[in-house]
Amino acid sequence: MAVAGVAGAFAAGRASADGAAGASSALASSYAFRGEHQAGIVTPAQDRLHFAAFDLTTDDRDDVVALLQDWTEAAERMTRGDGAGEVGPVEGDPLLPPDDTGEAIGLPPARLTITFGFGPTFFDKLGLADRRPAALRRLPHFPADVLDPAISDGDLCIQACADDPQVAVHAVRNLARIAFGRAAVRWSQLGFGRTSSTSTTQDTPRNLFGFKDGTANLKAEQEDLVDTHLWVHPDDDAAAGWLAGGSYLCARRINMTIELWDRQPLADQEGFVGRTKGTGAPLTGTAEFDEPDFDAVTGTSPTIPVDAHVRLVHPSVHGGAQMLRRGYNFVDGSTPLGALDAGLFFIAYVRDPDTHFIPIQNTMAKSDALMEYLKVTGSALFAVPPGIAEGEYVGQALFT
Amino acid sequence: MAVAGVAGAFAAGRASADGAAGASSALASSYAFRGEHQAGIVTPAQDRLHFAAFDLTTDDRDDVVALLQDWTEAAERMTRGDGAGEVGPVEGDPLLPPDDTGEAIGLPPARLTITFGFGPTFFDKLGLADRRPAALRRLPHFPADVLDPAISDGDLCIQACADDPQVAVHAVRNLARIAFGRAAVRWSQLGFGRTSSTSTTQDTPRNLFGFKDGTANLKAEQEDLVDTHLWVHPDDDAAAGWLAGGSYLCARRINMTIELWDRQPLADQEGFVGRTKGTGAPLTGTAEFDEPDFDAVTGTSPTIPVDAHVRLVHPSVHGGAQMLRRGYNFVDGSTPLGALDAGLFFIAYVRDPDTHFIPIQNTMAKSDALMEYLKVTGSALFAVPPGIAEGEYVGQALFT
Repeated sequence: MAVAGVAGAFAAGRASADGAAGASSALASSYAFRGEHQAGIVTPAQDRLHFAAFDLTTDDRDDVVALLQDWTEAAERMTRGDGAGEVGPVEGDPLLPPDDTGEAIGLPPARLTITFGFGPTFFDKLGLADRRPAALRRLPHFPADVLDPAISDGDLCIQACADDPQVAVHAVRNLARIAFGRAAVRWSQLGFGRTSSTSTTQDTPRNLFGFKDGTANLKAEQEDLVDTHLWVHPDDDAAAGWLAGGSYLCARRINMTIELWDRQPLADQEGFVGRTKGTGAPLTGTAEFDEPDFDAVTGTSPTIPVDAHVRLVHPSVHGGAQMLRRGYNFVDGSTPLGALDAGLFFIAYVRDPDTHFIPIQNTMAKSDALMEYLKVTGSALFAVPPGIAEGEYVGQALFT
Repeated sequence: MAVAGVAGAFAAGRASADGAAGASSALASSYAFRGEHQAGIVTPAQDRLHFAAFDLTTDDRDDVVALLQDWTEAAERMTRGDGAGEVGPVEGDPLLPPDDTGEAIGLPPARLTITFGFGPTFFDKLGLADRRPAALRRLPHFPADVLDPAISDGDLCIQACADDPQVAVHAVRNLARIAFGRAAVRWSQLGFGRTSSTSTTQDTPRNLFGFKDGTANLKAEQEDLVDTHLWVHPDDDAAAGWLAGGSYLCARRINMTIELWDRQPLADQEGFVGRTKGTGAPLTGTAEFDEPDFDAVTGTSPTIPVDAHVRLVHPSVHGGAQMLRRGYNFVDGSTPLGALDAGLFFIAYVRDPDTHFIPIQNTMAKSDALMEYLKVTGSALFAVPPGIAEGEYVGQALFT
C-alpha cells in the first residue's frame, strides 16, 4: 500500500525555465508532498542530501503550530519545483525581502523530498511530555562513540533529498529562513552520494570503504516487511497514537579512518565486511544477493569471520529486525591532522529503535571488526510523523 | 588553439560495469589528461568539485619528482575512468592493500579533470626559490579577510572536478593515499554546484545569493582573450619560463552571511549586485548579456550604484583585466551560532595575479556593497604548470 502510494505520487514536474533541455527525466520529476506516509522514506533514494537539525527558540505551542503550517506550505511548493513562498523569488514588492532565496530559479524539482521529524526534547520544551513516544529518548552512548554535542540531537529535523544538491540546499535554507524567531539550525550535514538503495529498481551504491552498502536493505517493494519493520502501528504506543503511520529516524555521523583503511590488505577488508569488494557477494557466495552461509567453514575457521560486519548485523541474530537505511557519503574537508573528515552519514528508519536499532548498534559497537575504522561523531533520534492529507500540516495529529 | 585542444580531447569514455544504462552521455565522457594546457581550466565547468591543498612532508627533490610522476600516472588513469593503480581495486594480491580504493568501481568517468598547482612555499622547501615566479607570493591580507590559516595556503594543490561527486572525491582520496610519506592533505573543500560557466555552451548558474554568477566570465571560445588573460607567456617571467602555457590559480573561501542577505529587500540585493535577480540583466539592460551602462542615471543617481559589484569589478576599471572563474557553491554544515557555513569557493585562473586578481580584489574589498555579506575565511595562490606531452610528468619543466 505504501509502495502504491509512492508510485502514484510520482509525476512529471513542471518544465524548468532554463534547464529543461539538459534535464534528465528524473531531474524533471517530482513527488507529491502529501500522502499516507511522508515522502523521503520509501521513496527511491535520491543522489544528494542536506540534513538539518533545529532547536526551538520558542516554547509557545501556537508558535510551533504556525511554524509547522508554514513549513508544510513551503515544502509542498518546493517539492513541486516552485519557490518557497506564494509570490516567488523576484515577483514581489522590491522593497521587501523576497519570499524565496532564488538559487533554485530555473532548476527542475529533481525528485526533491522533505521529511520532518521531532526529537525527544521537542516534547519537553512544549509541555507535551505525556505524548512523547516511550521509544523516543536520546540515543545511548555506544562504546565507540566520540560524540560532538554540537552535531548531535536537536528538537526538530529536516531531511531534504534530491538529485540536484542545489535543490536540497535551497529547501533547507528556505525552511531555516521561514523558521526565524521560532527555530534555528542546530547542525546541518550535506551528503554527496547515496549509500543505500530503497527500491529494487536501484543499483547498490558504494560507501567510502569502497564496498557496496545496503545489499540487504529493506526495499519499498517488500510491502509486508515494510509494514512490519518500518511503520509505527496504531497500537505500538498508547501515548503516541499520533505517530501511527510514521517511523523513527536514527541518524549517526560515522567518520571513517579512510587513510588507515586504505592500508589494509584486500583480504582483510573483505573479512571485516564479510563480502567481496568487487561484486558484493557474501564470502560464501558468488553473487551480490546470495544469502550468506554463516555455518560454512574454510579449513577450521568460519568462512565469514565471527566478527564480520555482515554476520553481526544480520537480521537472523536480531530477532528478524530489519531497517530501511538511507545514508549518504560525506566529506567535510580535513581534520587538523591532515586526514579526510569523511565517512557515512547513516540514516535508518525503523518502527521501534528499542528493537530495530539500539541492540544492533550495541552488537556492532562491541564486536564488529569494522569498528576499528569507524568513529561516530554525531548521533540523533527523531520521531517522524505520518503523512498528511489535504488541508493538514505536518505533525498535526500531535497537536489535536 | 586551447579550445581546439579541449574539444579534440573530449571522447567517449569506457562503458561502466554497473551504471552504463543509467549514465547520461556527459557522465560517460572523459577528457584527455595530457595536452598543451592542463585540463580543468578552460574545460567546460563540471558540476562538482573536490579541491585539496597539500603540504610536503619531505624536502628531498627526488622524492617530490617521484610523487609528481606517480600522480601523473594515477591522474591519467582516473580521468579515463580506470582505477588509480595499474592493478585495480580488487584484482591484486589479496594479501596486499589494493592500489585503488574502490568507491568508484562501475562509475563512468563523469568528465573528471585533475589539475595540479604549486604554492609559493613549495619552492622554498625544495631549494627552488630561484625558479619561483615573482608573482607567486602569499596573497595579501585583504580588508575583509578573516582567514583561518588551517584552510589557507599550501605547498601543492589538486583541483578535481567531475559531474559525479563520488568520482571527484575518489580522485583526491587516491592521490592523497599515493602521496603518503611525501605530502599530506593540509585542507580540503567540496563544492556541490558550479557557479561559473567556462564555455558559451553552458547556462550561467546561480550562487547562494540567488543571482546568476559569472555572466561576464572569460569563456573558452574567446580564444584571443584566453590567450591574453589566462595563459602565462614564455617571456612573462625570466625566472619562470617553465610556467609558460600555465596559469595562476587564486582560491578564496568566501563565506556568505546567508541569513542576513535573505532579509534584504529585493531592490537592495539587486543594487548591491548591479543586476536583476531574475534574468541577470544589468540594471541598465533587459537581457543577461547586455553590456552594463555605467553612465546611465535614474533621477539624479547612477542606475547602477557606485558601489555595485558589477561596476567595481568590471574590466573597464581594471585596465581590461579579465579572469576565468571556476568557483563552486559550498555548504559545510553550520556555525556554532546556527548560521549555515555556506558560500562560494571562488577559483579564478589568471595570467598574472598582480594585474588580474589582487587589484580587483582590493577594489572589491574596500568598496563593494556585497562585502557586508561576505567573509573570506580561506585564501591561497598556486602556480599551475602547463599541460604535458606523452612521457612527461606534471611540472616536469620546473625540474629539468
